[in-house]
Amino acid sequence: MNEQLIYLDNAATSYPKPETVYTAIDEYNRHCGAPVGRGAYRKSVEVQSDVDQCRKLAAEVLGASRPEEVSFTFNGTDSLNTVIHGLLRPGDHVITSDVEHNSVLRPLQTLKQRWGLEVTYIPANAESVVDPLAFKQALRKNTRLIILNHASNVTGSIQPINEVGEIAREAGVLFLVDAAQSVGHLPLNVSAQPIDFLACPGHKGLLGPLGTGLIYIRADLAEQVESLKQGGTGTSSEEETQPLTQPDKYEAGNHNTPGLVGLKASLDYLRDRGLEDIRRHEQELTGCLLEGFRSLSGFEVPGPQEVADRVGVVSLINQAVEPQVLASILDENFGIQVRAGLHCAPRIHDSIRSVEWGGTIRFSPGPFTTLSQIETTLSAMQELAVSFSV
Amino acid sequence: MNEQLIYLDNAATSYPKPETVYTAIDEYNRHCGAPVGRGAYRKSVEVQSDVDQCRKLAAEVLGASRPEEVSFTFNGTDSLNTVIHGLLRPGDHVITSDVEHNSVLRPLQTLKQRWGLEVTYIPANAESVVDPLAFKQALRKNTRLIILNHASNVTGSIQPINEVGEIAREAGVLFLVDAAQSVGHLPLNVSAQPIDFLACPGHKGLLGPLGTGLIYIRADLAEQVESLKQGGTGTSSEEETQPLTQPDKYEAGNHNTPGLVGLKASLDYLRDRGLEDIRRHEQELTGCLLEGFRSLSGFEVPGPQEVADRVGVVSLINQAVEPQVLASILDENFGIQVRAGLHCAPRIHDSIRSVEWGGTIRFSPGPFTTLSQIETTLSAMQELAVSFSV
Repeated sequence: MNEQLIYLDNAATSYPKPETVYTAIDEYNRHCGAPVGRGAYRKSVEVQSDVDQCRKLAAEVLGASRPEEVSFTFNGTDSLNTVIHGLLRPGDHVITSDVEHNSVLRPLQTLKQRWGLEVTYIPANAESVVDPLAFKQALRKNTRLIILNHASNVTGSIQPINEVGEIAREAGVLFLVDAAQSVGHLPLNVSAQPIDFLACPGHKGLLGPLGTGLIYIRADLAEQVESLKQGGTGTSSEEETQPLTQPDKYEAGNHNTPGLVGLKASLDYLRDRGLEDIRRHEQELTGCLLEGFRSLSGFEVPGPQEVADRVGVVSLINQAVEPQVLASILDENFGIQVRAGLHCAPRIHDSIRSVEWGGTIRFSPGPFTTLSQIETTLSAMQELAVSFSV
Repeated sequence: MNEQLIYLDNAATSYPKPETVYTAIDEYNRHCGAPVGRGAYRKSVEVQSDVDQCRKLAAEVLGASRPEEVSFTFNGTDSLNTVIHGLLRPGDHVITSDVEHNSVLRPLQTLKQRWGLEVTYIPANAESVVDPLAFKQALRKNTRLIILNHASNVTGSIQPINEVGEIAREAGVLFLVDAAQSVGHLPLNVSAQPIDFLACPGHKGLLGPLGTGLIYIRADLAEQVESLKQGGTGTSSEEETQPLTQPDKYEAGNHNTPGLVGLKASLDYLRDRGLEDIRRHEQELTGCLLEGFRSLSGFEVPGPQEVADRVGVVSLINQAVEPQVLASILDENFGIQVRAGLHCAPRIHDSIRSVEWGGTIRFSPGPFTTLSQIETTLSAMQELAVSFSV
């Protein structure tokens, strides 16, 4: 880790990872190298066992009742596309929200253009939270799926997924949760919550490497979700038909094996440290950021006011200076790494009225961010606020 | 690298990788960690520049006239699916061959089942090579695409891609080459050869990490190939429509950044060492394997007899002992890692008549395999042949 820099871009990808992630990857790369599930030799069997274990740990974090309900993908977008393209058919209607990321909005837009998918977008309130009742009111006879972000990648606002999920369940509509910003940060239990599908990356809150993603597809629904890609699975090689059993159905071609070996190490870390501890730590840091930012002259803090209603993502809006300019100054003058712009979530900026100011500047601490780094960041921002108000 | 073991499974994934691949990945993981193309801070810009450089090197290896014609995927299967699903439409006919991998056969089979894609499979001869004329004879009015393996992953047989490509071009049919077993081993130049699309992994002959793949889509054809996945691209965040420009159109969601950093290092290595040297080295080893194996009693060596007609993949058929058993003995008694079975290529086993014997046992040396390792392997096989014939 670069000790001089302060990394506050964990909503994009977490950094640093636990030390064991680095060592597991390097160890695999140098001393194993074998692909998963395709060899009779011991090294290949060993790494298969690591990947099986990784799947078990992932199922545990998500609360899946069976490991096979979790398939490995290559990023959260890959996971979301698998359900969206695999499930939806001409004539279907989808309800989603204005807080979604382009990884949901763009596949939906594509299906609108390709064959006329009907989509309703539920607006968010001034705190960028959706109203579950609005989903109920938007239901149609042909509503097949509701898709909702668990937590916004722009404001950190936690969405009422249980309430929306209940509405879906009562209406016989399926429910897909985009947990990109919540997994590893908030408790999740797909078996206890009204969730049918859950998509998330492995490299954000789960602290695994880039190039990994997860998708939970409830076993009894797999029949309805066609595979997005087909190819070698290392199983039933004699069959030209993609296997219909999970997880193979959704896992075509070689895995990102070093990525999964790293993800296994990070899931081990999460289990040992405990999500409660991470949540407590991130809430403390987020609370400091919120409090400090509220006193900054010229800056607005969109999203929920209460730290309990957020994950560790805090955005700022400034009407005078472009967010990219602020981010560059923070990096170059203070060594603070943050994200600026629309964050691939174009609709939410309407509700928080940031689009005309070029979006937001976003601070996202992680499990290894220290209080002292947050204090340094607040000082830097105070300095900037003063210099820009002069 | 584990010095005690002999790795002869390079057709599955290459191992070892160049030392610089390991160090680049570890360096990135520990000291950068930033995702590509999504940040204003210097670390993010630096890694973007690495990925741009990786794209340039990849375009160079493939002979693409512009780097943007090469998109990064997550494996060869991902690349093949992008073209197959993105291009083909109801009413289309495809010509492919019996030497294909399931990464081609399974997407085609899926489209046959989903909406009635018409597919003709060209058989291979006894040396598992296809006849270009058979492709010409199979052309129909609605033939949209020809797909051909450049080199078989079972027998190493090199296919006449130029001749088939010319036939496609004359007929106004598009041509997709599956270069999974040839890239990094054989010269390729998509600009000089009659190739419209080329798909390959980054982790086999290109010596990069698992979790990487490449797809070449000629610029003027991108309009015809719809994106398989849509999502954040770090560009045009305000647009809900997937960008239509290459490479973004085919790159949704976060890249496998450590993978691409590693791939850049391996492409640098390949450029420095030169493909000619690797080809010469692999031909020497393959020649030794062929010569040694031909004298083994009870074993048959399917595929081309001349080393010039092969990449470094040699299979053996034995009618008495299952290939998995042989592979396990080689691993456990001699520390030799090979692959056994159908190798995810079910049709080719008809032409080489290996299906009733459970497929083949496959030896695939790589650029770091030594002559002495090949000699050890031949001795081990001679020992086995003697013990099984007793």
